[in-house]
Amino acid sequence: MRPIVDFLLNDWLNVTSLTERARFADHGAETFAQVLDTCERIAREKYAPFNRLVDTQEPHFDGEKVTLPQATHDAWKAYAESGMLSAAQDYDIGGMQLPYVVEAAANGFFGKASVSIGAGMLTTGNANLLMAHGSPLQQQVFALNEFSGRFSGTMCLSEPQAGSSLSDVATRATPDGAGFEQDPLGARFRLVGNKMWISAGEHELTENIIHLVLAKIPGEDGKLVPGVKGISLFIVPKHMVGTDGALTGERNDVVLAGLNHKCGWRGTTNTLLNFGEGKFKPQGQGGAIGYLVGEPGQGLKYMFHMMNEARIGVGIAATMLGMAGYEASLAYARQRPQGRPIAGAGAQAESGPKVTKDAARPQVPIIEHADVKRMLLAQKSYCEGALALELYCARLVDEAHTGTPEAAAEASLLLEVLTPIAKSWPSEWCLEANSLAIQVHGGYGYTRDFPVEQYWRDNRLNMIHEGTHGIQALDLLGRKVVMQGGAGLKLLAGRMSDTITRAGQVDGLAAMANGLAAAVQQLGAATKSAWATGNPEEALANATPYLQAFGHVVLSWIWLELALVAKASQPVTDEHAARNAGLLAAARYFHVYELPKIGAWLNVVAAREPVCREMQDAWF
Amino acid sequence: MRPIVDFLLNDWLNVTSLTERARFADHGAETFAQVLDTCERIAREKYAPFNRLVDTQEPHFDGEKVTLPQATHDAWKAYAESGMLSAAQDYDIGGMQLPYVVEAAANGFFGKASVSIGAGMLTTGNANLLMAHGSPLQQQVFALNEFSGRFSGTMCLSEPQAGSSLSDVATRATPDGAGFEQDPLGARFRLVGNKMWISAGEHELTENIIHLVLAKIPGEDGKLVPGVKGISLFIVPKHMVGTDGALTGERNDVVLAGLNHKCGWRGTTNTLLNFGEGKFKPQGQGGAIGYLVGEPGQGLKYMFHMMNEARIGVGIAATMLGMAGYEASLAYARQRPQGRPIAGAGAQAESGPKVTKDAARPQVPIIEHADVKRMLLAQKSYCEGALALELYCARLVDEAHTGTPEAAAEASLLLEVLTPIAKSWPSEWCLEANSLAIQVHGGYGYTRDFPVEQYWRDNRLNMIHEGTHGIQALDLLGRKVVMQGGAGLKLLAGRMSDTITRAGQVDGLAAMANGLAAAVQQLGAATKSAWATGNPEEALANATPYLQAFGHVVLSWIWLELALVAKASQPVTDEHAARNAGLLAAARYFHVYELPKIGAWLNVVAAREPVCREMQDAWF
Repeated sequence: MRPIVDFLLNDWLNVTSLTERARFADHGAETFAQVLDTCERIAREKYAPFNRLVDTQEPHFDGEKVTLPQATHDAWKAYAESGMLSAAQDYDIGGMQLPYVVEAAANGFFGKASVSIGAGMLTTGNANLLMAHGSPLQQQVFALNEFSGRFSGTMCLSEPQAGSSLSDVATRATPDGAGFEQDPLGARFRLVGNKMWISAGEHELTENIIHLVLAKIPGEDGKLVPGVKGISLFIVPKHMVGTDGALTGERNDVVLAGLNHKCGWRGTTNTLLNFGEGKFKPQGQGGAIGYLVGEPGQGLKYMFHMMNEARIGVGIAATMLGMAGYEASLAYARQRPQGRPIAGAGAQAESGPKVTKDAARPQVPIIEHADVKRMLLAQKSYCEGALALELYCARLVDEAHTGTPEAAAEASLLLEVLTPIAKSWPSEWCLEANSLAIQVHGGYGYTRDFPVEQYWRDNRLNMIHEGTHGIQALDLLGRKVVMQGGAGLKLLAGRMSDTITRAGQVDGLAAMANGLAAAVQQLGAATKSAWATGNPEEALANATPYLQAFGHVVLSWIWLELALVAKASQPVTDEHAARNAGLLAAARYFHVYELPKIGAWLNVVAAREPVCREMQDAWF
Repeated sequence: MRPIVDFLLNDWLNVTSLTERARFADHGAETFAQVLDTCERIAREKYAPFNRLVDTQEPHFDGEKVTLPQATHDAWKAYAESGMLSAAQDYDIGGMQLPYVVEAAANGFFGKASVSIGAGMLTTGNANLLMAHGSPLQQQVFALNEFSGRFSGTMCLSEPQAGSSLSDVATRATPDGAGFEQDPLGARFRLVGNKMWISAGEHELTENIIHLVLAKIPGEDGKLVPGVKGISLFIVPKHMVGTDGALTGERNDVVLAGLNHKCGWRGTTNTLLNFGEGKFKPQGQGGAIGYLVGEPGQGLKYMFHMMNEARIGVGIAATMLGMAGYEASLAYARQRPQGRPIAGAGAQAESGPKVTKDAARPQVPIIEHADVKRMLLAQKSYCEGALALELYCARLVDEAHTGTPEAAAEASLLLEVLTPIAKSWPSEWCLEANSLAIQVHGGYGYTRDFPVEQYWRDNRLNMIHEGTHGIQALDLLGRKVVMQGGAGLKLLAGRMSDTITRAGQVDGLAAMANGLAAAVQQLGAATKSAWATGNPEEALANATPYLQAFGHVVLSWIWLELALVAKASQPVTDEHAARNAGLLAAARYFHVYELPKIGAWLNVVAAREPVCREMQDAWF
């Protein structure tokens, strides 16, 4: 995978140009490469060898403690020591001031080696949020100890009765008596409620676990405000902490109610947590102690501030599982002998064409069969395309943070439109890649003696968490492409148009350029038709096919971009020439086999096809 | 599921008309219904409650015996006692003379309840083969004891080095000394070799296990004949049997080398068997004793004689897993409250349309959301459509066996073309249905507390065994649609044309009829283009997309057939009216959302797109 990462970062995204900016001025191609080297090495040594182990030795809860394999402890320690938890942070708090695009690429190696050992993403996200919205002391006590790896972090959004529907959050936060506002760690509340699907919600990897919890502060009538506006954000540590960051020795009232036993991703504890059930009584009272972050009622806004990066993180995880399967099936196809080439051309006889295979010849490695090459090329086009999309989005995050005001605004707007794709597309298509990886292995791929079935199981999560496919689709068609009068869609179309213009002038890319131009037009027309009646119910009934089509158009654009770079490159080695040929083949594969699928998806969008929304319960 | 089964058998396929034939004359609508009732009940009582148990308590081998859960023993016993093992056999050997279409439908209930407990299919197939090609004594000693459930059977085709490539079978069968041809149980050989992926290859469910084994008899030079022509078929019992059917007490040299540990389908033992490794020395000699079935060199022909039914069996298993997930997710969607309807229609404002949800209103069951209805309707269209296809093919098997010579020949030809679809289409799309069933459940569907993740894991096998997707595709485009000058394809197109003509005259079905007509034309044109150069390498490089498109055209035809019946039916109850409305919605869904997908698949077929076959190893 490293060659494609290097190609994307250097040949395409030109990340070293970021070092012209003050924040990244100390960096250069070498420091970026060192970070990638280090992560690749740790992933190879501390993650990959234990990926099957964490699948079979699931987290175990004895009623008191959650036990994880030693390998998980070792992996966490190595990750924390690498400094990656605070890679993006300022030097003065121990960070590396690394561009996000390099951080994201480097973290990819861990996802590919063992997606479910790693729990760094949530801790980093948690601490980053506090750096953006917490008080200086909250940053000092909680975030900095997370960056060092002493504490870890969670994000507690969902509840058993409210998964995708955050407006129905029912966890209550009531002021903790007189003077509650004077606590130096933040206004002090007592939380009561249940949180579901909390990853890394309980374990012994770190001294403490810092939960960031969405909850509602009741009004004067004691009732919770319906909807998302009443949601506030609280820091709820598992163990109480003093202002010096030391544990006070007192346990907060956060109790593990149960572990979720999943189809895959089994190395990560996934929990149902009870807040304030009364098992512990911190400071002598009932209710879990939580410190308000920022202003009341702004909880969801703060969470969503981090959402782009969280969703890119999911996209990268999905991509890396796809990559892992691609590499495994490629290696298998190269060494597995089976069958013979199809021979015996010639005119079609009356009884049909003659398809012969000379059984006396030795079998060939299956990579020589066209259908196996098809399955590998599909995987390559899905996974390398997805990686390119994710790194493009990550580069936009850097632009939004460190670009000129105008460039930053553009990058933010593009990110709004692309994030639902960055989250959903790899979740769907790199899962398909994993299925193809199994298929390349035949029966062996279906056994637990080979790694591919686990990748496939692990990857199935990604269409569900951090906003399901359906939620991403509503976000895209219901919000992102229509916001600001469609400014985001126009901006993206402009970028695509620029690529099309450039590709139209390059020998061999005209057909792809024309295909993409037609697709962009078709997508724009379908967007308009969907909203032609202005009725959200009609428009959004086909939001998911819209999301699928939009994703395929974006990926066709990405592949045309990569084809342009490959065409422009002057290969100095055979490896470079082969890499370029492979990129061009994958681009062609995507344009010829995949892009035409948008017709079926956009037809129903444009027609505002009603058969789904008009379907009645009794008819099923 | 029962209502749709009854609808397909009675309202569509009119199976009671089969009772006009001598073989089925004692049957009637009531006896057919009784068989379905019995199987439904046994499946509900003895299979369904233990489906998760057989997933978690995998077969265990202690070096001597394979231990299976008690539930598996109970299920086998109940199945054998039901008489279903010999349902299709003559009355005079204890059979029911049941039409295959009813047998297949009835067996479906077991697949839906717990696909991996059931091992009946292989035993029935094994014994059926012997009834067709074995000697009278082989039938008496082996087949009849399988029909009674005293013995069970396997099919031993694949070897570790030869999965899909049967021409490379390396198991050797040498004549067992002087007089080897005089053994009353059949010419006696000694077999040495290894067989992989053998389902139910070792267990204690039955007194004996009867292996049907493909092996090669060396020529006079001691060498095996390359290719499939040298393959013969042998009966290799685990325990030696006398001509009276009693066990002699001697163990044959068939040894379990290991169990395969699979991603799903864990209730069925799947084995690597060593034949003639020397652990046992039956009759004092080395090599497993095997009795030749029929003539030497005809082994594969005999096996393939049973292949249509075996592949329909896989198609039904895949369909039933899809059905199980559909029913589970439908039930979940009806009771799970989450979110609110999209409200707030009105003109599109400058800042985009106003999408509002009144958070103060109670949440609604998720079945009220259009996107959830879409996921359920997709499942319905995949699974009920697949079931219809399978039962249509099963009805063709009956026609081939009991129809007039002309009808039988037509049915056989149609089956040749449809079998690759019957095997592959449900394997792909009912797996997709299972993924949608997980998605409907959200995070819960990804846990092992709900059944849908297991259905998804179990179903992933079906694209692999009994001929992979790629093998089915080569069979279809390389053989079936070109054999006899394309006679099979013409026959199928004629049947479709008839449906189109009838539907064209029915109010509300014209659009679907036109759509199917265009699709059939497109498929025919692509078939011609694929073979236009007469070069198999060029034609077959896109065999899999061809298979996918062909399958979608077939399913669109099936759905148009069902829509015709629903339109013609005069509902007498609200349930019937709802059922008809549901069938029409599913037909529409399939035609509007699914059929247009063929464009992308057929484009590459017609263009003989070379990017996959021209891809080079070094470019990956």
